[in-house]
Amino acid sequence: MTAPSTPIELVTIGTEILLGHTVDTNSAFLGEQLAALGFRVTRRTTVPDDAPAIRDAVDRALDRSHLVLTTGGLGPTRDDITKHVVAELLGMPLQFDEQVWQMLLARYEKLGRAPAASNRSQAMVPTSATVLPNRWGTAPGLWLEGPRGVVIMLPGVPHEMTRLMEHEVKPRLGALGGSPVASRMLRTSGVAESTLAEAVAHLENDLAPLTLAYLPGVAGVDLRLTSWDAAPDTARARLDEGIAKLHAVAGRWAWGTDNDDLAASVLDLARNAGESIAVAESCTGGLVAGRLTDIPGSSDVFLGGVIAYGYAAKEQLLGVPADMLRQHGAVSAEVAEAMARGVAVRLGASIAVAITGIAGPAGGTPEKPIGTVWLAFVHRGGVSSRRVVLGGTRPEVRARAAATALMGVRQLLAPDESAR
Amino acid sequence: MTAPSTPIELVTIGTEILLGHTVDTNSAFLGEQLAALGFRVTRRTTVPDDAPAIRDAVDRALDRSHLVLTTGGLGPTRDDITKHVVAELLGMPLQFDEQVWQMLLARYEKLGRAPAASNRSQAMVPTSATVLPNRWGTAPGLWLEGPRGVVIMLPGVPHEMTRLMEHEVKPRLGALGGSPVASRMLRTSGVAESTLAEAVAHLENDLAPLTLAYLPGVAGVDLRLTSWDAAPDTARARLDEGIAKLHAVAGRWAWGTDNDDLAASVLDLARNAGESIAVAESCTGGLVAGRLTDIPGSSDVFLGGVIAYGYAAKEQLLGVPADMLRQHGAVSAEVAEAMARGVAVRLGASIAVAITGIAGPAGGTPEKPIGTVWLAFVHRGGVSSRRVVLGGTRPEVRARAAATALMGVRQLLAPDESAR
Repeated sequence: MTAPSTPIELVTIGTEILLGHTVDTNSAFLGEQLAALGFRVTRRTTVPDDAPAIRDAVDRALDRSHLVLTTGGLGPTRDDITKHVVAELLGMPLQFDEQVWQMLLARYEKLGRAPAASNRSQAMVPTSATVLPNRWGTAPGLWLEGPRGVVIMLPGVPHEMTRLMEHEVKPRLGALGGSPVASRMLRTSGVAESTLAEAVAHLENDLAPLTLAYLPGVAGVDLRLTSWDAAPDTARARLDEGIAKLHAVAGRWAWGTDNDDLAASVLDLARNAGESIAVAESCTGGLVAGRLTDIPGSSDVFLGGVIAYGYAAKEQLLGVPADMLRQHGAVSAEVAEAMARGVAVRLGASIAVAITGIAGPAGGTPEKPIGTVWLAFVHRGGVSSRRVVLGGTRPEVRARAAATALMGVRQLLAPDESAR
Repeated sequence: MTAPSTPIELVTIGTEILLGHTVDTNSAFLGEQLAALGFRVTRRTTVPDDAPAIRDAVDRALDRSHLVLTTGGLGPTRDDITKHVVAELLGMPLQFDEQVWQMLLARYEKLGRAPAASNRSQAMVPTSATVLPNRWGTAPGLWLEGPRGVVIMLPGVPHEMTRLMEHEVKPRLGALGGSPVASRMLRTSGVAESTLAEAVAHLENDLAPLTLAYLPGVAGVDLRLTSWDAAPDTARARLDEGIAKLHAVAGRWAWGTDNDDLAASVLDLARNAGESIAVAESCTGGLVAGRLTDIPGSSDVFLGGVIAYGYAAKEQLLGVPADMLRQHGAVSAEVAEAMARGVAVRLGASIAVAITGIAGPAGGTPEKPIGTVWLAFVHRGGVSSRRVVLGGTRPEVRARAAATALMGVRQLLAPDESAR
């Protein structure tokens, strides 16, 4: 037997969140981090920058849970009142902390600015609180322990919150955690969720006590296995075994696991095979190149490419014959293949991919409806092409076309194997 | 005097949200929609797929507010229990609804599938509930009115939730709303938040009763004005006046308002001026082209471009002399200008922008640290270039470089005016 995960409640504070002006990405980050440390978030409450509402939310959270983590409301402006409210609730009066003040002064000096009078309030600290130094902003985090439990207060600015979590909160939470909730994913592309479900559904009982979730995205479907309340070694072994089982039935659509990136996996395969890549993009307008160049170190494999949006660019930059464009139209096997050949020759690339299609919202015809995309692939002198018809809005068609192009290159490089 | 906005609480249901596997974008959407209809979200509570937790959250929300909107937990699987819990809480027993069942059968027929036995539970409806037909999925929404107030239940799948909100909930909510919370934004780029704050801070009292928020993003800072509890006409007039005041002091950095898109504004200005645009991208690797081609109708202005990632691409596709690359390096004024000239000539574009820089994480030197980016602009035959040093991670440097390039093109097209 292992200890179950430890309950913790989140209280996120900010009128902006409730107005929908800010998407609460902090909560998702904290949920994942806490699960991995052996904590289970049992409730998240979001309240406006309003003292009675903050007080009520923290008070009730402490009624249910001995651990509460708040984000937001620690800065110097009048809206930032979390510290005062929680200190009063826990009966810990605020006092001026010279050490915190010196850290603030040092930070302002580094920024070449003088602190405003309002910044002095940031050096007020509840008695017996542990200060969590914030090297990435002016408001320190606070760790308060009282008879009702532990309240951890973090600023709401994401890059400060995430770093305080990593450097200050994680080490202190370690001792309090139970069994981690752990997950692994098999990542697929080019297959409908329903088809995937038909292939995988019969495994569900066999995978227990792991649970299985289908996570459809624009560019593919992720299959996520989750382990609950098991010791880390057991969880790890079960998850690895579960991924292998999923792979056995869905491997032909899989391109990776967990945090793998499709573009990164294509670059790795190409690098290992000594290949180089070039792209010629029409309807995707740079998305494939953008995904490849987002990966650090891509320049040793990715040579570059052409965004051939209009006819002129296809002719001038890729040598697509004007006759061919007139006769077959820009969205055709002939033009896609000529684009791929053109960029491969010009850059001396061993692999080239070309994409030309109709992303919408206008430009569709009965023969070539919106979402029609021709892809062509050059590999070691040979050329191939195929047509897909992709659903969705303009951004979705573009993102799916880019993912399909990357999957196509992946298949050139690893025709017989798939992701482990 | 006008009626203040009407309080409403959100209860979002889903273990996936608390684990951080799903970012709660539904809440942001609902917050914005409800604010525009005259409702103020006073609290958001998120609980797992667990009957006692759901019951407690809805019960307490009804203690505080006569209006509660839930998302999630309406589908056919065993986790989807919201309907049962809320029906029991409000004392409305479930009964089988033949009309809902017929709608479900019709939907399954359209999808070419037979409903599973578990789908029958989706036709169980609390007595006296109003069914909100769901033409985009299988779980209908529900509208329950009882002595304690109104509970609106929507599915958690975003594309179903948003459409039910638009078509079924909005028309019914209209009569219950108070004064809308309304906002407008002035959007800026190329200026630090602190510099912007110095220019704008003295206006804050003058802007009251509007409130001002600074929203820094990777590509710029938005200034948002919000009107609370004013009649729509008054709010609109105050917001327009407030935007004009902000513009008077921050207009030189502004490129638009509200939902404007920088790439779209560049395309509009170019279209009106009869100009055409081409790009040559090195470190941004297609991001500028990606942003331009994301806009429907961009093809009449944007001709295409070159992703000149390696030396070979710069030489072969843009005609940058090998000598120049050796002498000055790829990140230099000379090469940036040659890239811009090269793509302008090849595509016959009246405007060309070239970007070459060091995005990191490797490749920096003392003279050319990471974040160094040269931008060159060709306009009507003339060429200019400038250097910026951008902060942040690799994706941030790339996104900032792309935004700086678009801002540069905007300034060519509208040197004397800025966004209204």
